[in-house]
Amino acid sequence: MKELTVIKIGGNIVEKPAELENFLEKFSKYPHPKILVHGGGAYATELSHKLGIKVNVTDGRRITDSETLKLVAMVYAGLINKTIVALLQKYGCNAIGLSGADGDLIPAVKRSTHPLNYGFVGDINPENINTPLISSLLARGLVPVFCAITHDRNGSLLNTNADTTASSLAVSLSKDYYTELVYCFEKDGVLSDPENPDSVLPLITKAIFERLKNEGAISKGMIPKLDNAFCALEKGVRRVFIKNAKNLDNETGTLLK
Amino acid sequence: MKELTVIKIGGNIVEKPAELENFLEKFSKYPHPKILVHGGGAYATELSHKLGIKVNVTDGRRITDSETLKLVAMVYAGLINKTIVALLQKYGCNAIGLSGADGDLIPAVKRSTHPLNYGFVGDINPENINTPLISSLLARGLVPVFCAITHDRNGSLLNTNADTTASSLAVSLSKDYYTELVYCFEKDGVLSDPENPDSVLPLITKAIFERLKNEGAISKGMIPKLDNAFCALEKGVRRVFIKNAKNLDNETGTLLK
Repeated sequence: MKELTVIKIGGNIVEKPAELENFLEKFSKYPHPKILVHGGGAYATELSHKLGIKVNVTDGRRITDSETLKLVAMVYAGLINKTIVALLQKYGCNAIGLSGADGDLIPAVKRSTHPLNYGFVGDINPENINTPLISSLLARGLVPVFCAITHDRNGSLLNTNADTTASSLAVSLSKDYYTELVYCFEKDGVLSDPENPDSVLPLITKAIFERLKNEGAISKGMIPKLDNAFCALEKGVRRVFIKNAKNLDNETGTLLK
Repeated sequence: MKELTVIKIGGNIVEKPAELENFLEKFSKYPHPKILVHGGGAYATELSHKLGIKVNVTDGRRITDSETLKLVAMVYAGLINKTIVALLQKYGCNAIGLSGADGDLIPAVKRSTHPLNYGFVGDINPENINTPLISSLLARGLVPVFCAITHDRNGSLLNTNADTTASSLAVSLSKDYYTELVYCFEKDGVLSDPENPDSVLPLITKAIFERLKNEGAISKGMIPKLDNAFCALEKGVRRVFIKNAKNLDNETGTLLK
């Protein structure tokens, strides 16, 4: 089987032009085939404030009413996605920007309104991802760049978590590729001491993760990312890395196995 | 050669949800292969006002400074493009939303700043359009949906006229397809009397066009559209229709030959 890398880049880096371009230059040199998934983040919130749209984030998840859905479609699928694509083209990487609605690539199901109504938020079943179309784009040398917008197949877009979009893509494609999933963010990896940036754990197994979780040694924000990552490993992804976007071209970071 | 239809839908229809959905239902039933190109229009202006970005339109063309470029990327490539794609998916039409940056499909050249600096506005040379990739998407049964955003291959997006984007696509693809170009808007066709909606001219040849222009019988806003259309016919497009979006499924409208 061929190797494939799915790389997710967080909203914090996406919004810093110099860091973003630095990352994209490294990404453009990363071996093909590869897929990029990008987050959104602060700019959507800034724009909400400017437009007088109420921002409602519960447990780190954005409640998406119809006005917020329009806003994230604009920011994630429009501004951020196309800015990234144009920059990758500059570096000779033949990127193609996509949402989950395009080519019915990532259909999703609107989340149940119980116990909390998240609004237009979608959950993905990796089995429904249109992997033949993704494989055919990869085979043509194209580099898919996904924003975390999906659709319900009934005319509505849905806002979807970017970490989950990346892991779902990696899981679905692991039928056809030896798949690696890389989460890039602004820290050097998973820290054993959240206060100490030098405390990067080089390797975390499921057993180590459970122990660290019980000891309260892992920061709260990192737990869903790690849950997501171990779930992907159980479903066929071969390796998961959590690393600083600056270190995409080297081995620094946390390997999950 | 296979037949191909490139259909352009104007900004006025794009912004009326009921008319847009009515048009897209008809478009979804239109024979494949087909391509949709959509305009932007009033919502970008509305959003500019809300965000305090100065709107500067000269001779019907938007002067695109860097803030306006971000705004049109959001509205055209994000909100409008993905809304159309999700609706087409609902009607069983496997749409894929694209800008000219995606897959380097439509590279453009930033317009000269003389005699007027239009800012980040791009002009297309149809010979540079990536027709093999478009043909391969069409061959997979996909329906490309283009917004009128292109790129300069050097990291910058460019705002491009939607009529020109449609005619450039039609011209470039006429090497490989028997190509028809359809401009859909809110009138029934080209009117001999702009005050009389029933005065639709069923057929305009180049000679008739020149005569009507000299007589002042064609409305000012229609002239660039017709110039564009006749230029496309000279460069290999077989037929151009100008018609009401409501009449996509019938023969009403103006045929240019």
